[in-house]
Amino acid sequence: MAGPKGNAVIGQSGGPTAVINRSFIGAIIEARKHGEILEFYGARHGINGMLNNEYVPLFEQPNFVLQQISCTTAAALGSIRHKPSSDECNRIFENFKKMNVRYFFYIGGNDSAETAYIINSFAAHEKYDLRVVHIPKTIDNDLLITDHCPGYGSAAKYVACAFMGDNEDNRALKGVKINVVMGRNAGFLTAASILGRQYPKDGPHLVHMPESPFDIDLFLKSVDKTFKDHGRALIAVSEGINKQGIYNLKTGEKPEYISTWLNSFVNLNLPKKYMPKGENKAVEVDSHGNVSLSGSGMMGDILAYIVKSTLNIKRVRSDTLGYPQRSFPLAISEVDAREAFKVGVDAVIAAIGDHFDEGSVAIKRVDQDGIYKIETFISPLQSIQKNTRSFPKDWITEDGKIDERKFREYVSPLVGELPMAGRFVKAIF
Amino acid sequence: MAGPKGNAVIGQSGGPTAVINRSFIGAIIEARKHGEILEFYGARHGINGMLNNEYVPLFEQPNFVLQQISCTTAAALGSIRHKPSSDECNRIFENFKKMNVRYFFYIGGNDSAETAYIINSFAAHEKYDLRVVHIPKTIDNDLLITDHCPGYGSAAKYVACAFMGDNEDNRALKGVKINVVMGRNAGFLTAASILGRQYPKDGPHLVHMPESPFDIDLFLKSVDKTFKDHGRALIAVSEGINKQGIYNLKTGEKPEYISTWLNSFVNLNLPKKYMPKGENKAVEVDSHGNVSLSGSGMMGDILAYIVKSTLNIKRVRSDTLGYPQRSFPLAISEVDAREAFKVGVDAVIAAIGDHFDEGSVAIKRVDQDGIYKIETFISPLQSIQKNTRSFPKDWITEDGKIDERKFREYVSPLVGELPMAGRFVKAIF
Repeated sequence: MAGPKGNAVIGQSGGPTAVINRSFIGAIIEARKHGEILEFYGARHGINGMLNNEYVPLFEQPNFVLQQISCTTAAALGSIRHKPSSDECNRIFENFKKMNVRYFFYIGGNDSAETAYIINSFAAHEKYDLRVVHIPKTIDNDLLITDHCPGYGSAAKYVACAFMGDNEDNRALKGVKINVVMGRNAGFLTAASILGRQYPKDGPHLVHMPESPFDIDLFLKSVDKTFKDHGRALIAVSEGINKQGIYNLKTGEKPEYISTWLNSFVNLNLPKKYMPKGENKAVEVDSHGNVSLSGSGMMGDILAYIVKSTLNIKRVRSDTLGYPQRSFPLAISEVDAREAFKVGVDAVIAAIGDHFDEGSVAIKRVDQDGIYKIETFISPLQSIQKNTRSFPKDWITEDGKIDERKFREYVSPLVGELPMAGRFVKAIF
Repeated sequence: MAGPKGNAVIGQSGGPTAVINRSFIGAIIEARKHGEILEFYGARHGINGMLNNEYVPLFEQPNFVLQQISCTTAAALGSIRHKPSSDECNRIFENFKKMNVRYFFYIGGNDSAETAYIINSFAAHEKYDLRVVHIPKTIDNDLLITDHCPGYGSAAKYVACAFMGDNEDNRALKGVKINVVMGRNAGFLTAASILGRQYPKDGPHLVHMPESPFDIDLFLKSVDKTFKDHGRALIAVSEGINKQGIYNLKTGEKPEYISTWLNSFVNLNLPKKYMPKGENKAVEVDSHGNVSLSGSGMMGDILAYIVKSTLNIKRVRSDTLGYPQRSFPLAISEVDAREAFKVGVDAVIAAIGDHFDEGSVAIKRVDQDGIYKIETFISPLQSIQKNTRSFPKDWITEDGKIDERKFREYVSPLVGELPMAGRFVKAIF
């Protein structure tokens, strides 16, 4: 049977991407074409809006608004990072029943897939007829099953361009430059830095992903060698580099992050008035009363310091590429935008179909005659939630480097065309 | 008389920009049209190439190479930060004489203008016939005389877009976000963050430029108020914020940078093997044997920490926008690119002209019927070198904010069109 007539709720969750709104608007535009979905409600800040009945009526938005929002980075409905408890599920379903909600779409990564899974299980348990579809997005590209995730292509384009520009900068003013790239447990985004290379001596010269163990002494040796060979070194480091390497973790074992390790050497002895007072859950103080600066923002600075102090190189700089990776409005990949729209459309088509199975929209490649082409299919929520995917082991060569041919073949269609740098003839330097 | 027949040398100096190569290529293409310049030599890494006779022959570069290099960010010849001593001038002029160099073009900011001034004075003193023209570039927009500097428009476009994206991100996941912007002693680039605002409640909600004094306690009060008013706060902070404010400095007085002040509270107690040993001029150690992390990279992190700890706000993040501000290849302003090309062309036209005066190419606005238009003129090197310009005082309102109308009128034509964000109707949040 076709989907029931009823209302739909959609929410956005987790870290925003440059194209998450394409999926969101794709779902609305498709839903408008069919009779099954009577009204489409956008939950403000995901689960939070569902708990507090804060919804945006979507069918009454004018077309030019939908068009504009689809081209806007980040999550127009507002986002959240929260998994509903069973109490919260009760409250959500009270609202859903009153509102006659029969369709639920949740756009996000694997945590959001887990939320969708929880909602779906709760509906099944309550014998409440609800069709749940998860719509994938993540800049980390770490979802299982799908060939790649909408949001990744644009973030990869940003990273590629940042490295391309920085490679030119580093050629002009030589030294060591360390750029810290997003992606705590998966190296896909850090790997995209190699797209910045266009000529044989271009950087990044060293790329460190969370999948492989990071040893600071080996790192310093390679920086030294690179600097001696090229007179400069451009380095890509994932925010999630760790001592063991994700590949080598045993079940249940947590990665020992280099950022945490380096931050442990930092003491911030601020004047007392700027230190936390009494109950302050916003900051952490260790057993010695020292404050620790969380996050990976300082990792680049400390690594740069260590390079300076041990290798005696004068010009050492670092940047943490930061939020522009996921929100810069001028680095949107066209393919990524199109596919993000498509997974939104296909989520609705699946939801109202005759034979419905709960799940997440996944992408597979069906290249024809060497031309890039994709199809989508629905993969059960169970298969997407909780676990994540690493950079494929067989894309790493024996000497621990990225297999550039394999990775470029995979990533180039997702990123699209990149700017070209120029070089003098007969004057290579 | 027209310029003498002879050879020309061109160099690039100081921090690269996204369009410095446009000026460089503009000069070559113009020079090719005239008979005065016989061969055009590109000095590798500015003064350094002139000292070591490292030149790229430019007239023999194919057109497609010139075209590609003009669209490449950063300095294709390589850059340098160095002022020639009189010994070095002697060596440079020995080479110049052998090479029959009669024209010298130097692309850079006020330090580079000073180098051009030194070269020019040396030539005059030696009674050596050399026509010296400085070609302006800087992302800081801090050169005197000229209405604006090539390089600024593109950097401003990057900053505007980074804030635009981050404003969407901060709306989606609410909290406090601090972005540190380049421009050590001039607030033009930090001010460009306000171009990210498109709707009444958009950020940046607070903007701190080096021109005005920065008081951390007042800062915390405004963050607190903004967060209470909006449920979030997006903040632009110049890397050069300081205690006195550039406007209030007495002659010879140095700004007390907030970054230096905050870094003084940081102790980095690294394992001994990562600390500097013996003679190491790359890093600084204070009288207590503590190492200090230089630069402004950590300022954002420490400010974020203080906001967390004193205001008890959980989600506080910071980014230092870093090198992409000057080298990101997808944020080039068309007007900026065109004008950068033009100042290169006009430098050559001036140099080979009948009545030559040494100087720097400066831009003035000659808007017609409200339509943006510029002309260039030559301003003496003396007038450009050493001193820099601040953000105009009369573009600051009585309550210390940027006069948005005045500044937008000035900056919008330089930056060009920006992406538009979308908002729901009847659901403002």
